[in-house]
Amino acid sequence: MTRTASVASAAVGTDVTRVAVSTVIFSLRREPGEVRPTLVLPLVKRTRDPHESAWALPGGWLDIAENLESAASRTLAETTGLSPSYLEQLYAFGAVDRSPTRVVSIVYWALVREDISRTESFENVAWFDAASLPPLAFDHNQIVGYALWRLRNKVGYSQIAHGLLADEFTLAELREVYEAILGRRLDPANFRRQVESADTLLPTESFRTGSHRPARLYRYNQDVELADRGPLAH
Amino acid sequence: MTRTASVASAAVGTDVTRVAVSTVIFSLRREPGEVRPTLVLPLVKRTRDPHESAWALPGGWLDIAENLESAASRTLAETTGLSPSYLEQLYAFGAVDRSPTRVVSIVYWALVREDISRTESFENVAWFDAASLPPLAFDHNQIVGYALWRLRNKVGYSQIAHGLLADEFTLAELREVYEAILGRRLDPANFRRQVESADTLLPTESFRTGSHRPARLYRYNQDVELADRGPLAH
Repeated sequence: MTRTASVASAAVGTDVTRVAVSTVIFSLRREPGEVRPTLVLPLVKRTRDPHESAWALPGGWLDIAENLESAASRTLAETTGLSPSYLEQLYAFGAVDRSPTRVVSIVYWALVREDISRTESFENVAWFDAASLPPLAFDHNQIVGYALWRLRNKVGYSQIAHGLLADEFTLAELREVYEAILGRRLDPANFRRQVESADTLLPTESFRTGSHRPARLYRYNQDVELADRGPLAH
Repeated sequence: MTRTASVASAAVGTDVTRVAVSTVIFSLRREPGEVRPTLVLPLVKRTRDPHESAWALPGGWLDIAENLESAASRTLAETTGLSPSYLEQLYAFGAVDRSPTRVVSIVYWALVREDISRTESFENVAWFDAASLPPLAFDHNQIVGYALWRLRNKVGYSQIAHGLLADEFTLAELREVYEAILGRRLDPANFRRQVESADTLLPTESFRTGSHRPARLYRYNQDVELADRGPLAH
């Protein structure tokens, strides 16, 4: 092996396993004319092969001097300008045939509040309805499917919905977050009973006024973690 | 950079991130004289630096043509001879300072039935009480702590305990598995009521006889998955 060959093979990565970091970012969007919000995620249009011009999850290569979660935050900021309200490792995807060269992707999933997700506009980034994605690059459809499954599970036994809401919200707004995540309508009276008995919400003295009758604003009990991440919490 | 330098640096991995796969394997042991089983795990004594002669999780480097789960199974078989009844990805550990060179470890966790875990004896492998480990190599104490947390969570909402039991078992044996995992005693009458109402056990027509009065043998309902692994199930 000559030096040139060695450098070239390192550059294209045909003889090494490379580590990438990608992130599935969920947010909510209220489309004009739509009463209810939709669960959406940002994708980046690829500008080179493999899968040139296909949509893909935001991400990039892991730097040698960078922790995994830092790499997720950095690549997220570089590609979309977003900074998440919740970030958790999802899974390591490493099937041999998932890319022309060998790539193990450490995938994170994140939540971004609706207001923040609208503040930046990046080239080659677009937001998609999480429930109806086009065919994505690599195994990214499978990855999004798994992230949705994790989110739907977690919303049932944690305060994770908070990561998609402003600090204060009405019970109707909270219910709409659950409905957008679960993809189905929930009975308002049952929903109110369940969240009130769960003891994770604190009523405020403020009300949302508008075209409807005033609705009390709530906030999450900050003494309770957004989600129990066990000994890996930081 | 000369060719020699290139080969040397590739060999020690100072300028690349390498991917390793390790596995936390839980089993049960009934020590002589002890009535109740203990949750145990196998560790391998390291024979080279870093951390020479410290105990570490079974594992090894990911081959370029090998899937992650295959690597977990292979390194498990090579280092301990074990073949697990349950295997699931735990987490990717990738802190920059967890090793002198940059290593991202994709960690799996596994369950091995008690009878199988006794059939092989490998050099440099010993079984340890999961609740009282010595200081391990690298960040392996933290990794075992996280695996224990995952196992304790999962035993509450899945049939995962089955992975530590023979096909047929008494309710007392099942309760002992829960007690060993959770690290506390459970009320026998309450436990019986809970598992009977969960509908995941099927009574057989066989009984365990011995020094006590005959106890009915049960088996798990095979129509229910050991644990819901969502869209990643295979």
